[in-house]
Amino acid sequence: MKKELTKEFLERLQLMLETGNNTSVLEELENIHPADIADILTSLSVDESKQIFDLLDDEVSADALMELDEDYRERFIKTLSTEEIVEQVDNLETDDAADLLGELEEDEKDEIIAKLEDQEHASEITDLLKYDEDTAGGLMHKEFVRAKAYWAVDRCVVELRRQAEEVDRIHSIYVVDKDDVLLGILSLKALLFADAKTLIDDIYMREKVHYVKTHEDNEEVANVMEKYDLVAIPVVDRQTKLVGRITIDDVVDVIKEEAEKDFQMASGISENVETSSGVLKNTRSRLPWILIGLAGGVAASQIIKGYEGQIDMNPALAFFIPLIVATAGNVGVQSSAIIVQGLASKDFQFTSIFKQVGKETLVGMLVGLICSIIIFGISYAFMDDIKLGITISISLFIVVVFAAILGAMVPLLLDRVKIDPALATGPFITTANDIIGLTIYFVVAYFVYL
Amino acid sequence: MKKELTKEFLERLQLMLETGNNTSVLEELENIHPADIADILTSLSVDESKQIFDLLDDEVSADALMELDEDYRERFIKTLSTEEIVEQVDNLETDDAADLLGELEEDEKDEIIAKLEDQEHASEITDLLKYDEDTAGGLMHKEFVRAKAYWAVDRCVVELRRQAEEVDRIHSIYVVDKDDVLLGILSLKALLFADAKTLIDDIYMREKVHYVKTHEDNEEVANVMEKYDLVAIPVVDRQTKLVGRITIDDVVDVIKEEAEKDFQMASGISENVETSSGVLKNTRSRLPWILIGLAGGVAASQIIKGYEGQIDMNPALAFFIPLIVATAGNVGVQSSAIIVQGLASKDFQFTSIFKQVGKETLVGMLVGLICSIIIFGISYAFMDDIKLGITISISLFIVVVFAAILGAMVPLLLDRVKIDPALATGPFITTANDIIGLTIYFVVAYFVYL
Repeated sequence: MKKELTKEFLERLQLMLETGNNTSVLEELENIHPADIADILTSLSVDESKQIFDLLDDEVSADALMELDEDYRERFIKTLSTEEIVEQVDNLETDDAADLLGELEEDEKDEIIAKLEDQEHASEITDLLKYDEDTAGGLMHKEFVRAKAYWAVDRCVVELRRQAEEVDRIHSIYVVDKDDVLLGILSLKALLFADAKTLIDDIYMREKVHYVKTHEDNEEVANVMEKYDLVAIPVVDRQTKLVGRITIDDVVDVIKEEAEKDFQMASGISENVETSSGVLKNTRSRLPWILIGLAGGVAASQIIKGYEGQIDMNPALAFFIPLIVATAGNVGVQSSAIIVQGLASKDFQFTSIFKQVGKETLVGMLVGLICSIIIFGISYAFMDDIKLGITISISLFIVVVFAAILGAMVPLLLDRVKIDPALATGPFITTANDIIGLTIYFVVAYFVYL
Repeated sequence: MKKELTKEFLERLQLMLETGNNTSVLEELENIHPADIADILTSLSVDESKQIFDLLDDEVSADALMELDEDYRERFIKTLSTEEIVEQVDNLETDDAADLLGELEEDEKDEIIAKLEDQEHASEITDLLKYDEDTAGGLMHKEFVRAKAYWAVDRCVVELRRQAEEVDRIHSIYVVDKDDVLLGILSLKALLFADAKTLIDDIYMREKVHYVKTHEDNEEVANVMEKYDLVAIPVVDRQTKLVGRITIDDVVDVIKEEAEKDFQMASGISENVETSSGVLKNTRSRLPWILIGLAGGVAASQIIKGYEGQIDMNPALAFFIPLIVATAGNVGVQSSAIIVQGLASKDFQFTSIFKQVGKETLVGMLVGLICSIIIFGISYAFMDDIKLGITISISLFIVVVFAAILGAMVPLLLDRVKIDPALATGPFITTANDIIGLTIYFVVAYFVYL
């Protein structure tokens, strides 16, 4: 049922486009899902994409447009005239339409909204544009069905049939009072199996209804929907009036993006970058952390320089600089990663922060002890310098414990001051640990060789 | 509608448990979602949890049990008798029941299945236990509704009413032929608005129906559902007979777990560990990468030792060892992270691997050039040793380019040989780059000071 998208298929398509064989192109693309069409467009040149785009059915092209990578869509949209964008917006669901408009300049945005045919659609989109894109309001759409509590089942079915025309998937029916205040939820199943004359008031669920408010954070919405296994969630304003709905597919995107952001931060990438992004954007996203690392390296060089005398007396001390800094960095990143994950999944609701840092300290001591013993064993077996072995072992232990504590504390502190704790897992903690680790190493060496 | 779970609430609850005030405990927990109850249980001692657990309604306790962290559940389940587990399994949906049984010993598993009251439930669970937990079969459940294509709408509603009793959420009705081969999908909406005498055959959707096969990988299921924004997907066997259904909430868990795994790997944690895990498990999950890093450190010490003569002649060379290794590590991790993400989102469907490595090389050259110029500037301004500045700048450039290429190639190669490419983002690439970076540094130094 799904067409395999191969390189051969793509080349065949390009040939058809080149020869202007539009009928064959359309035949090839028939019944292909908009998400797959977006994949195809992304791997073609913007000109070829435009050519295909013009051939497509309006609804398919609108959906494919929204499935494109943001980077690619930005480039692609520049090839469309205002009229063409208006046509796309007309065919999009309200949340996608608002997202698309949000990517445009202010005056272009207004021009397009003014030109929309469907006035209700236009005013719904205008309403959605008010909300910050990182909130529930920015995530919700206006396509949902609502039933008044005082309706009977048969009237409800008639009303819903009218409402449901523009709604792709219903999931649940939201039950409201005469002022649109959310009362509860009615499942399609309940409606399907109820008697025609029953009042909605008698069959809907009042309790355990989860909802979010328009100003709540994206991530909070994702947490609620994930925790309670919800497929859709109603959105209310500050007066608990029903204003929109968020479905799980949009939330899956939020979850993915959050995870990608955390992963990129842990890898020292500062800006959302995809494999399709250009060389310059790629470089720009990577430079900040590299430069911080570089600054750390320069600072480290000054620390070592400060202990030059010790290296002069015992050059072997220099051999183990990479071992100290690498271990400090690795332990620190591990600790902060565990804390960041715990914070993300709200594991610390009931546990005190001190307890968690205490646990990381304990783990650090255990890891440090094991490393120290191994390193002492190796140095004892292969080197004749017992003092060097003692220096490395002792400093390694201290460094590991310190790195574990710092790694655990930094994300907790960042979270306290409302900064994304994932920032701590990046080269930041590694760089800090490098410098601290080196200092500990040379101070220990100073006392051992005293 | 949702009770805020505070520390005070928890302490009040503990006090009630201590004084045996069961009625108040139940009152407090009324209308709290099983997922929240699981949170409460996790923050209590196993004894206290057991006390609460016994008070709860069977269905609530079963759901709460499945919402527990795996670590905690493992400990908790040991306090339950076989009879108590049987009771839980009776109340669980088939997929959860199979998951729970999968965590038990073989003989205990069989004993429990034999004791289940509902024979159909027991045989459905037995069927699910056949599948690998990382496949679509391991993820699916047996609670779904199916309609025969030759039914009329009114008969369908009657049949579905019977089937739907055990199904929490219907989403879609799967349409099958007389042999249970999947034909297409019927939305509840279509059924609700169709005439009583219409044949199902005339109103269901035949095309664009997505399904997965039982042996397909977890991640593949997640990719399909995410890409096509599906809320539920039917699962078929090799004869395309309908055997189960997977809903998005289970897939959200898969997506989360995959993301967590990648994040943990990038942070050098080798085993799934949560903040609630004990000190020993935590230590065990972290030691492998630390020991690899340690081995790398020892190897690095041998390399530096090999160039001891150069350090003797020019001790300042030692100062910049951390700068070289840190930068090499940072760049390598960035490159591999970008490739790992691209592989995960199937971005390379149409692009050749060479093109991608080429791009990373270009980015590496740009980053390397910028770093070299900055470092040369710093060394020129603050140090009087021009040769040292040249050594650091040239080697830094080579090291960065090399790290970028290696960082890009390793995950691509791992993916080629079917190993999780995320492995490359861990300390592995950092350690390798440390060693290579040091070698480049001293070789360059050798030629500059020649």
